[in-house]
Amino acid sequence: MAFQKIKRNEDYSKWYNNLVINADLAEHSAVRGCMVIKPYGYAIWEKMQQQLDKMFKETGHSNAYFPLFVPKSLFEAEEKNAEGFAKECAVVTHYRLKSDPNNKGKLIVDEDAKLEEELIVRPTSEAIIWSTYKNWIQSYRDLPLLINQWANVVRWEMRTRLFLRTAEFLWQEGHTAHSTRQEAIEESERMLEVYAEFSETFLAIPVIKGVKTPNERFAGAEETYTIEGMMQDGKALQMGTSHFLGQNFAKAFDVKFATKEGTQEYVWATSWGVSTRLMGALIMAHSDDEGLILPPNLAPIQVVIIPIYKGEEELEIISQKVKPLQEALKKEGISVKYDNRDTQRSGWKFAEYELKGVPLRIAIGPRDLLNNTVEIARRDTKEKMSVSMDGLTQTIQNLLEEIQVNIYSRAKDFQTKNIHLVNTFSEFESALETGGFVSAHWDGTPETEEKIKEETKATIRCIPLDNKLEDGVCIMSGLPSKQRVLFARAY
Amino acid sequence: MAFQKIKRNEDYSKWYNNLVINADLAEHSAVRGCMVIKPYGYAIWEKMQQQLDKMFKETGHSNAYFPLFVPKSLFEAEEKNAEGFAKECAVVTHYRLKSDPNNKGKLIVDEDAKLEEELIVRPTSEAIIWSTYKNWIQSYRDLPLLINQWANVVRWEMRTRLFLRTAEFLWQEGHTAHSTRQEAIEESERMLEVYAEFSETFLAIPVIKGVKTPNERFAGAEETYTIEGMMQDGKALQMGTSHFLGQNFAKAFDVKFATKEGTQEYVWATSWGVSTRLMGALIMAHSDDEGLILPPNLAPIQVVIIPIYKGEEELEIISQKVKPLQEALKKEGISVKYDNRDTQRSGWKFAEYELKGVPLRIAIGPRDLLNNTVEIARRDTKEKMSVSMDGLTQTIQNLLEEIQVNIYSRAKDFQTKNIHLVNTFSEFESALETGGFVSAHWDGTPETEEKIKEETKATIRCIPLDNKLEDGVCIMSGLPSKQRVLFARAY
Repeated sequence: MAFQKIKRNEDYSKWYNNLVINADLAEHSAVRGCMVIKPYGYAIWEKMQQQLDKMFKETGHSNAYFPLFVPKSLFEAEEKNAEGFAKECAVVTHYRLKSDPNNKGKLIVDEDAKLEEELIVRPTSEAIIWSTYKNWIQSYRDLPLLINQWANVVRWEMRTRLFLRTAEFLWQEGHTAHSTRQEAIEESERMLEVYAEFSETFLAIPVIKGVKTPNERFAGAEETYTIEGMMQDGKALQMGTSHFLGQNFAKAFDVKFATKEGTQEYVWATSWGVSTRLMGALIMAHSDDEGLILPPNLAPIQVVIIPIYKGEEELEIISQKVKPLQEALKKEGISVKYDNRDTQRSGWKFAEYELKGVPLRIAIGPRDLLNNTVEIARRDTKEKMSVSMDGLTQTIQNLLEEIQVNIYSRAKDFQTKNIHLVNTFSEFESALETGGFVSAHWDGTPETEEKIKEETKATIRCIPLDNKLEDGVCIMSGLPSKQRVLFARAY
Repeated sequence: MAFQKIKRNEDYSKWYNNLVINADLAEHSAVRGCMVIKPYGYAIWEKMQQQLDKMFKETGHSNAYFPLFVPKSLFEAEEKNAEGFAKECAVVTHYRLKSDPNNKGKLIVDEDAKLEEELIVRPTSEAIIWSTYKNWIQSYRDLPLLINQWANVVRWEMRTRLFLRTAEFLWQEGHTAHSTRQEAIEESERMLEVYAEFSETFLAIPVIKGVKTPNERFAGAEETYTIEGMMQDGKALQMGTSHFLGQNFAKAFDVKFATKEGTQEYVWATSWGVSTRLMGALIMAHSDDEGLILPPNLAPIQVVIIPIYKGEEELEIISQKVKPLQEALKKEGISVKYDNRDTQRSGWKFAEYELKGVPLRIAIGPRDLLNNTVEIARRDTKEKMSVSMDGLTQTIQNLLEEIQVNIYSRAKDFQTKNIHLVNTFSEFESALETGGFVSAHWDGTPETEEKIKEETKATIRCIPLDNKLEDGVCIMSGLPSKQRVLFARAY
């Protein structure tokens, strides 16, 4: 294939970019910082969406849709949130173009069509949604309100990378309203669990669940829960966050409810989201120098069948053998592609589906026909095996399950091996160079956190949820500390 | 219920608006012209999406995602298209806000963050997509390219109505590229058929398939195919369009391909779309003065079960009877809700589900328990019947199918009765007053079309696809005509 092949250990970042492009997942567009998600990449995203949507509905949420634009006056209502996003938002100021009188066929902004109030393209929807909830919530009977939205959002990022950081991205954002603090906290934690389960079961990526330090919280949140994944270069990727928003948005938008006792109280809120960034996680966690490795649970094509033949007649005989197999697999809900194109040789096809991360490749040639066998190749281990046509559907089903488990175990082993426990700053520095997460004592102050970040580029990824308390001293300040936190360099 | 009840024959337009609000489908937002689609409305839209998506995939299309923004220079590349949308587009000019030095806590546009080139929020995506296709298409082997996108678009409409005409709306837009004119025309026609089939089979709305006159074509199209539905007030609603774009966009963006013979040719294009406008069609085509009437194929709740009881104990006995029924229905893929809330009386619930258009309502009271029966009420005909608990799942399945067919037949009868064949202008005028579509001769000129529109507010909805040729004279100009066309007042 006519593309530059980069190995992971040569230049991980370049390897990633090349893979996204070469596997036909996404590309840069004509709009600064915005990507085009290509059909193959979008098919993976659709599978993620379907599963997440199912999990949201099973936990009682409904989908709805709120406007793309946020009027400036609503945008600025919750001050911390506004401050957090003001520096990177796209602003609509006019609603019409007109012909350029000095340049035939060209258009210019029509200054007569200036908006009285500017509209912000949503970077997140708390403001527009809470201004709406004000009319939906009067009494405790209206609560909880459990709503999710699938949408595009825009954050004007200066340095962008396909899937990981783009000006426009696709995501879902849950926005819930509750009558008690406790219930809202439980909701934030429940949705973090949903994200963790999705990540481990579908993406096959083990995650560390934790809370962010105040420094790293979502603008406007009282607590930010996070799941952090470890990529193959040892860097962390924040894969999903769930925020307990306290009463901040209820106060900003004056959303009160009548309690059972007849008093008026501000509503408690959560929000939570995952985005097309998960595509980046999926790619970076598992793939190798030959291309993508997709977990069967999310692979658009789970099995590809490639005929090995000379001449029309042989192809015809193979195709007749393949047809019932295809049908049997489809019946079991396995997505299968039979690539009988005569425009490409089988070697080319092998490389192509390796690049695309198809979990199982089946080759059938004349010898297989004689022996009633096929050759199966696993994408994850590159093992090849000759197996009988009898019971093949079951064999394939078992292999797909095995691959899903194996990819996860591999990532889990990698994660376990690369969490380093350190007790001094010099150990901390060398552990960071080795790569991975570093578990270390921190004195709990934002100043120390900032200083460590400046000196090492490592941030506190989270304070793990299941953290055990232990006495220690901060690696930077030497002040006493009650628990370790997880540091890493991150995407 | 605490809302104003308007009858269709009092004020059809007000009836519609009230119904959209009262049935919890959508509402106006804080952003001029933009709506909030509420959970119940969105659930119907999701059902539409799922079915359409399935039909697109069955006809060989893949989903992808392109940027929300179109740089002005790309936007203006296809002149007719640009001209058509320039007057109603949202323009992003800045990418940052800053604190207002004169007004603490407020934000203003940061003039230092002015974009070099303005970005248009997509009103439709031909421009951004064809600027991308240029890199995807080199040879006939890359064709056809069959892509669909689910997205939000913005058109700055001055007069808006929920679902029917909003500044932001949700839609799908197919964009395909072909090597021959003929193949592109076939694609446009195929997708029109998909829309027609979806409309008749799922929305239960009969449609007239036809082509638009040059006046009414999509800006940049060589031919616009349309499906036109008739609402209960006799007005037409354009429900979906499919455009043959010729080589206009290929020429504007210089998209050529190498033919098998080695020559370079411009690519042929189509685009096609349906939007949340279909929600408006669904509501207006079937509903009555009591509320929505939803076709079972799109109803989020197909069956609601309401217990009629006095006291906890009776409720408990009924609930035990309901449980296996609920499970049996779910197993058959029927969506069922058991409303055992004790906060509302059964009369209130009856009215509520009538308003929400739930196709079947099942009531179970103490007498039913004695007789092994339930009371079923059909939303479409308001019939009530007492039926046996035995074989109830099958009874319900049959009834749901019957309702789907009945709603369609009713709409079909209405449509047939309200297409008026006229031969003179005075007949034309009185037919329009009666309401419905008018089939009349037209001389084929845009001038006459425009004059009729000015005098009567009726537009040519389409030239039906199956039109038979017949000699006649134009109702307005008296000039000879070869065929009738369909006129109507329209949404």
